[in-house]
Amino acid sequence: MTVKKPRNEIKKLTERLREVTYLGTAIAVLQWDQEVTMPKKGADARAHTISLLAGLVHNKFLEIDHDGLLSGLKKKLDPSTRAKHGTGHSARKLSPAEATIVRETWRSFSRERKLPETFVKEMAELASKSQSVWAEAREENNFAKFAPYLERMVEKKREEAKLIGFEGSPYDALLDSYEPGMTASEVERIFTDLKAFLVPFLARIKKARQPQQMKSAQVPIEKQVGLSKKIATAMGYDFDAGRIDVSAHPFTTSFHPHDVRITTRYNPKNILESIFPTMHEGGHALYEQGLPHEHFGTPLADATSLGIHESQSRLWENMVGKSLPFWKHWYPKLQKEFPGVFTAPLAHFYASVNTVKPTLIRVEADEVTYNLHIIIRFELEKALLEGTIEVKDLPKLWSDRYKEYLGITPKSDKEGVLQDVHWSTGYIGYFPTYTLGNLYSAQFWNTAKREIPDLEKKIAKGDLQTLREWLRTQIHGHGKSYTAEELAQRITGEKLNPDHFSNYLKEKYEKIYK
Amino acid sequence: MTVKKPRNEIKKLTERLREVTYLGTAIAVLQWDQEVTMPKKGADARAHTISLLAGLVHNKFLEIDHDGLLSGLKKKLDPSTRAKHGTGHSARKLSPAEATIVRETWRSFSRERKLPETFVKEMAELASKSQSVWAEAREENNFAKFAPYLERMVEKKREEAKLIGFEGSPYDALLDSYEPGMTASEVERIFTDLKAFLVPFLARIKKARQPQQMKSAQVPIEKQVGLSKKIATAMGYDFDAGRIDVSAHPFTTSFHPHDVRITTRYNPKNILESIFPTMHEGGHALYEQGLPHEHFGTPLADATSLGIHESQSRLWENMVGKSLPFWKHWYPKLQKEFPGVFTAPLAHFYASVNTVKPTLIRVEADEVTYNLHIIIRFELEKALLEGTIEVKDLPKLWSDRYKEYLGITPKSDKEGVLQDVHWSTGYIGYFPTYTLGNLYSAQFWNTAKREIPDLEKKIAKGDLQTLREWLRTQIHGHGKSYTAEELAQRITGEKLNPDHFSNYLKEKYEKIYK
Repeated sequence: MTVKKPRNEIKKLTERLREVTYLGTAIAVLQWDQEVTMPKKGADARAHTISLLAGLVHNKFLEIDHDGLLSGLKKKLDPSTRAKHGTGHSARKLSPAEATIVRETWRSFSRERKLPETFVKEMAELASKSQSVWAEAREENNFAKFAPYLERMVEKKREEAKLIGFEGSPYDALLDSYEPGMTASEVERIFTDLKAFLVPFLARIKKARQPQQMKSAQVPIEKQVGLSKKIATAMGYDFDAGRIDVSAHPFTTSFHPHDVRITTRYNPKNILESIFPTMHEGGHALYEQGLPHEHFGTPLADATSLGIHESQSRLWENMVGKSLPFWKHWYPKLQKEFPGVFTAPLAHFYASVNTVKPTLIRVEADEVTYNLHIIIRFELEKALLEGTIEVKDLPKLWSDRYKEYLGITPKSDKEGVLQDVHWSTGYIGYFPTYTLGNLYSAQFWNTAKREIPDLEKKIAKGDLQTLREWLRTQIHGHGKSYTAEELAQRITGEKLNPDHFSNYLKEKYEKIYK
Repeated sequence: MTVKKPRNEIKKLTERLREVTYLGTAIAVLQWDQEVTMPKKGADARAHTISLLAGLVHNKFLEIDHDGLLSGLKKKLDPSTRAKHGTGHSARKLSPAEATIVRETWRSFSRERKLPETFVKEMAELASKSQSVWAEAREENNFAKFAPYLERMVEKKREEAKLIGFEGSPYDALLDSYEPGMTASEVERIFTDLKAFLVPFLARIKKARQPQQMKSAQVPIEKQVGLSKKIATAMGYDFDAGRIDVSAHPFTTSFHPHDVRITTRYNPKNILESIFPTMHEGGHALYEQGLPHEHFGTPLADATSLGIHESQSRLWENMVGKSLPFWKHWYPKLQKEFPGVFTAPLAHFYASVNTVKPTLIRVEADEVTYNLHIIIRFELEKALLEGTIEVKDLPKLWSDRYKEYLGITPKSDKEGVLQDVHWSTGYIGYFPTYTLGNLYSAQFWNTAKREIPDLEKKIAKGDLQTLREWLRTQIHGHGKSYTAEELAQRITGEKLNPDHFSNYLKEKYEKIYK
């Protein structure tokens, strides 16, 4: 009998995974098209196509183990099995990279095989349709139109949690697919502490003297496009492997490290409303473009968690994009490019960019209030899933919670419960990763400042590439080699520590609000 | 035993076909994206995805008969089988619509099952890659870069012809997939007559006194976009079920009658270079939007042939778009919208739009010389396929043929053999359908003028919808119910008759060139 060589088996597994991933990108292209370019009557046909493809990809993924290839490799991961069979030489130990491929593929595989094909197809079709209905309902400010779809979605997500299995809350089963290893109770613990810090901190800012602000940032849309591209290019975003388009909700999608697309939106009254989404999505895109393309299709070329993903977008949007050093370089450019618009001194501009003021719309929120928006969504979606509240009560609950945490009340569902796309597409359990990302971003930022000499001076000179390279080496290039927790430990020397974030806020906003 | 009801079998077949078609649209979306939006580094990954999907769609299509469903229905089509088995009552006769579904599905099925999956996947991957290489080669004016891909493509197409089978030329096997029932020898016969008319007709025009022309049609691109949309809307193109984008080669693609997209291109120096492609692609799009969507997936909702498809685009582009009545309505609008640009009188404008002058680029050719471009391509691609010429000799042969038929010589391959996308994507056998479309368009146009009272007066008043409705009733709504030949017979009372086209040219250009 010939000795089985893991390297060949890994090669075989990689080829199978690559096929599944290439097919999966077809779905991603169809979804990108749906949000960016599809004419509205195309929605029904699109939902059918996506549903069919989702079923095919699901089956093709499960087929990777049709001959026990994956299960066999999985056994090599487990030290007790290896010892028991004493296969020593013939079962050569997997290299760390091979172990990552097997461990992480096994993780997704074990999850995926619990879902029947019909479930996967129904979910894909519901998500695609429900998103179109949500877009209309939001446009028409008509929650009743969306409610039946959301009800069906919540039901389906409960079913998903049951199929996957869970110990604590059904929420755990969903959260785990976005943030592997994280649990609802751990999120609750972190969020409780964060809320305890944020609410009084916000109250102090509200009472402080408001800094002087600039008046306007009005720039024609055509010219905003050019600036967005310049900043993205400076960040190191490769336009030969990506593009910027417009969508209602800015997002990033990746079909391959060589085709990573971002969207933003433009408000002719305020150029900043396109700059920050561009930097945010640009941060996501750098992660995706920085994944090692030679491992495409395997977990080595896949982001480790959505929390880590969001740490990249927030680091670029906030720690860089809303910092004084960044604008020391870019504000004079703005002034030169749009004469007569940016007449305020840099200090006023900087204060405007960092105004803290409770708002109704999450994506417009400042760094201080942002996480309160997330906490509200987490509390509500968890309760929805656990069945302690009902879809029909959402608008009122939403309103009450905003009053309580932020002191403001939406006048319509459009600026309330209908504002986010997530629930319509079945992204329940996704919101907490935004706040986790904020926490990680401050922690990584502190390490970056420590490790990169004169980082902020470099940024003030327009050099963003040094930071990009550091992030690529520390994070992007590793794919799923390390979990979020391991990555934090490796890079920063400690696990997720929310103090970095609260200290960052204190230091920054005490300067601005004195 | 229960009596088998064809209606239920047809329903089952329709469901299967619909799944295949929905999946197929994923490929169409990926291709649209590749031509319109994909960043250049995305090409390799895209080729893999399309190839995988092509294999899946192929297999899924062949599976429709896994239980003999299609073969069983096919037997009901054949009167001798029906008589022999004497199944009378149990094998209820198929309705005409049912018979179309079975007959046309059987036609594609018999073709498709001759192609192995590996062949289909290799072809899809080669086509996708080769198209990217062609685009670069054309940009760089470098035929040598493209030649090896074209060689492989010709080889693959020869293999395809062999797999499909043919009696006369291998060209027949390819042509048949674009223009069912048409043969190379029939095309040759038609083209020989046409050339015999066109060459001396062109010589006469060259010798005639040239009419006075307008000077410029220079309009900024942003404003061209608006006018293209207005004209498409007037034609009845539904923008809720479609969109106009920009691509190097204008084209139309349909994912469903509710999502039919066209592209055009803009030249800031000449607005007409966007108007005519828009009307051309708009004509194709009206056919696709006019197919009965309730039959989506079946041959009842599929265009009958590319020749008939092209008759629609050319009818709108030439018979309507380059006619005096059309511009009686639209020229004053142009003049009003772009003051100071269109200062020439309508007669000069009309003469400019219809200038006859041999040019090197097919898509810029006038109605008289256009078909000579096609005849050259047909002759060369047929010879390539039959192996009487070689890829490496193409540039010289191209040049010689242009000299002979049109009296001009390309100075570069970019304006010669590299100008068209078709061969790179494997569309060999496709070109003749352009000329067939021109011939059909004149024939349909004569009938339309006879059957629609005051058609040209209506067009002069801006009414394009009456014509659109007539085309929908006569052609679009029928899908593949009638072959191209049957359709011509039904609508015009005769088979394809090229005299309509030559008489149309004579009448029109004798007036312009006196």
